[in-house]
Amino acid sequence: MRFFLHNHPQLMAITMRLQSFASAQKWEGGVSMVQGASRGIGLEFVKQLLEKNGKGHVIATCRNPTKATALLELKNQFAERLNVLPLDVTVESTIEESARSITERYGSLNLLINASGILSIPSVLQPETTLSKVQKSSMMLAYEVNAVGPILVIKHMWPLLKVGGLLGTDRDVAVVANISARVSSIGDNRLGGWHSYRSSKAALNQLTKTISVEFERKKDPIACILLHPGTVDTDLSRPFQRNVPAEKLFAKEFSVQKLLNIINNAKQRDNGKFFAWDGQEIPW
Amino acid sequence: MRFFLHNHPQLMAITMRLQSFASAQKWEGGVSMVQGASRGIGLEFVKQLLEKNGKGHVIATCRNPTKATALLELKNQFAERLNVLPLDVTVESTIEESARSITERYGSLNLLINASGILSIPSVLQPETTLSKVQKSSMMLAYEVNAVGPILVIKHMWPLLKVGGLLGTDRDVAVVANISARVSSIGDNRLGGWHSYRSSKAALNQLTKTISVEFERKKDPIACILLHPGTVDTDLSRPFQRNVPAEKLFAKEFSVQKLLNIINNAKQRDNGKFFAWDGQEIPW
Repeated sequence: MRFFLHNHPQLMAITMRLQSFASAQKWEGGVSMVQGASRGIGLEFVKQLLEKNGKGHVIATCRNPTKATALLELKNQFAERLNVLPLDVTVESTIEESARSITERYGSLNLLINASGILSIPSVLQPETTLSKVQKSSMMLAYEVNAVGPILVIKHMWPLLKVGGLLGTDRDVAVVANISARVSSIGDNRLGGWHSYRSSKAALNQLTKTISVEFERKKDPIACILLHPGTVDTDLSRPFQRNVPAEKLFAKEFSVQKLLNIINNAKQRDNGKFFAWDGQEIPW
Repeated sequence: MRFFLHNHPQLMAITMRLQSFASAQKWEGGVSMVQGASRGIGLEFVKQLLEKNGKGHVIATCRNPTKATALLELKNQFAERLNVLPLDVTVESTIEESARSITERYGSLNLLINASGILSIPSVLQPETTLSKVQKSSMMLAYEVNAVGPILVIKHMWPLLKVGGLLGTDRDVAVVANISARVSSIGDNRLGGWHSYRSSKAALNQLTKTISVEFERKKDPIACILLHPGTVDTDLSRPFQRNVPAEKLFAKEFSVQKLLNIINNAKQRDNGKFFAWDGQEIPW
């Protein structure tokens, strides 16, 4: 049966949705998924979601769970409330497999945070300081990870989010939060540079807006938002912190606390908006 | 010598620039390059540039010149004023080869129009009507052609544009015009859909803005602008014209005439702006 369904994507999608409704129960405290959870902001989201909500369930995904020591420590502490799954945004089958697993175990999602992202990888991807250093391979990689990946995750979690939103939460809507960055703003681009990162995140903004229009038209109980965490002291920003004034370099605890505040207060009318950590809207 | 230089990109770049200045002459009527010139808007730009400016030289590029019958007919008519070169935006070596050829023959560029772009290719790329139809392969292909390609062309033509701008034209600055589309606007996105096209063109907008910041900071005599041609009756729009009112479906002659008017009046202060065919600025 499974083999049969795998070869018929539409049938499989319908079956998965039926499974979702059949197994749908309202999980006290809700079911949250953090994609890109092995370190940085993603890991901190997992921690705070587990600590601040004594009953909520969290699905944390990363490319290689066996190497994600920090997540495994949390797993020791929070046991069945934390579910760690392998997911690589560049390999769509791992996203589908996660969706299947979440469907079987929970049947719904109340929150999806897309926290994965790349800015620099030594000897592979370097933020460009000038047009003359722009490389096609860097551009394509940043787009694949920062723009396409999160959208494919939403595509496959969409049925679960609809169920989660319908079952109801404290927020009335399920929330999709895509971590973007102020440097993605075209209107606010005064410094230039970082071509591959800026363009991939601008594309993520456009995709999030595009999806939000469909959610609204279909009256799906989902609000899809973009978040700018500020410059946060993580592995991602470390090589670029030199010119950041101390008061503008946030601890991840502070930034994630602010972002969770925005997420927890999100309403349907916030669907398609781009917020900074302090709740201010950022221009496109 | 050539073999030696090919293996030392920086030396080669310096040598090419020296060649540019050495061979730099002010070409009466200017030297314009239209990238993506075999059909549609690109082909119309080539025609009007040759017809309206009795002395200007035009370099028209396309993937396969031997099959570009319309360009070859123009070549018969305009002889040495039209130079047709092979260039595929997905193959960077063909862009470098064009830059080398233009450097040797002209030594400068006064105008670069990036007109290539894809929206749909039967059985390969279909504009998405819903998130559930988003395919990674389509997303990556649209980005490669619509966003990365034009930027790589500008990267390699940059030295030639600087010389062109310094030699002076009727406009005082060299112009780079990237053909974008209103559907790339995030702020103006009310209909959703077309995920791969919208996100690739939003990325092109961000890249154009990013480049314009560097041109300004370096005081390069180049204005880099984005243009929305309207919905023009070409192969690209043909499958999607059904719901376009007749008065909003432009002949390519009309649209290109309007766009050339914007290009010919472009000033340094327009660097980094996004104009519709009627000269109105489009929000990001």
